[in-house]
Amino acid sequence: MLGRLNHVALAVPDLVAAVAAYRDTLGARVGEPQALPEHGVTVVFVDVGNTKIELLEPLGETSPIAAFLEKNPSGGMHHLCYEVDDILAARDHLKSSGARVLGDGNPKIGAHGKPVLFLHPKDFFGTLVELEQA
Amino acid sequence: MLGRLNHVALAVPDLVAAVAAYRDTLGARVGEPQALPEHGVTVVFVDVGNTKIELLEPLGETSPIAAFLEKNPSGGMHHLCYEVDDILAARDHLKSSGARVLGDGNPKIGAHGKPVLFLHPKDFFGTLVELEQA
Repeated sequence: MLGRLNHVALAVPDLVAAVAAYRDTLGARVGEPQALPEHGVTVVFVDVGNTKIELLEPLGETSPIAAFLEKNPSGGMHHLCYEVDDILAARDHLKSSGARVLGDGNPKIGAHGKPVLFLHPKDFFGTLVELEQA
Repeated sequence: MLGRLNHVALAVPDLVAAVAAYRDTLGARVGEPQALPEHGVTVVFVDVGNTKIELLEPLGETSPIAAFLEKNPSGGMHHLCYEVDDILAARDHLKSSGARVLGDGNPKIGAHGKPVLFLHPKDFFGTLVELEQA
């Protein structure tokens, strides 16, 4: 069921500084910031060849990463996103295995314009897992 | 400088339960546990096609992930490992950019038998970064 790692999302308090660290210090290929107000983040994609790192900065009053940054003011690893072929089949398998799907259990359209679900971190040893229909 | 994402390391308190979650609940390809006493961990590789997830459980009295699991008893994302072509050139560039290399600044032989360095998480927004000479 589980496909490739689509991205690793890192929450950062200062996107300009994070871009400088990844582009200049680490020498990575870093894109332009994209404001996604409907998702409550501004995102920068770092292309590392085989997958993407997403640097996320809160945008707006109800950002989904605001609480994480309150607990981790320096930033940190926020979630891992894996691709699946069929998100509804994946959801049904996960629920039948006892894993908790966040929200109302129905896929939403994620930041890449594709259906996504998030799984409860307590069911995956402290890691927030996103599934995206590739 | 920065190459592909070699792996994402997840620290877990119970490797048997984590293997079950990744293999049975998520349907991932999961390898056999490998005890690496010289690195203080038992590791299971999860092959997700484009990169690897490494599930790490502490092994022995001086495990490098013991303190992390004391702070995060359920487990969590521990570090990201990127590949570089030349680890000494990477180190020199990082140091000249003001980034802090952990330990004595010299590469050690990592869990894959290749030279590795770790960078201070405070310089990378709360993410512990490992570099491995590919």
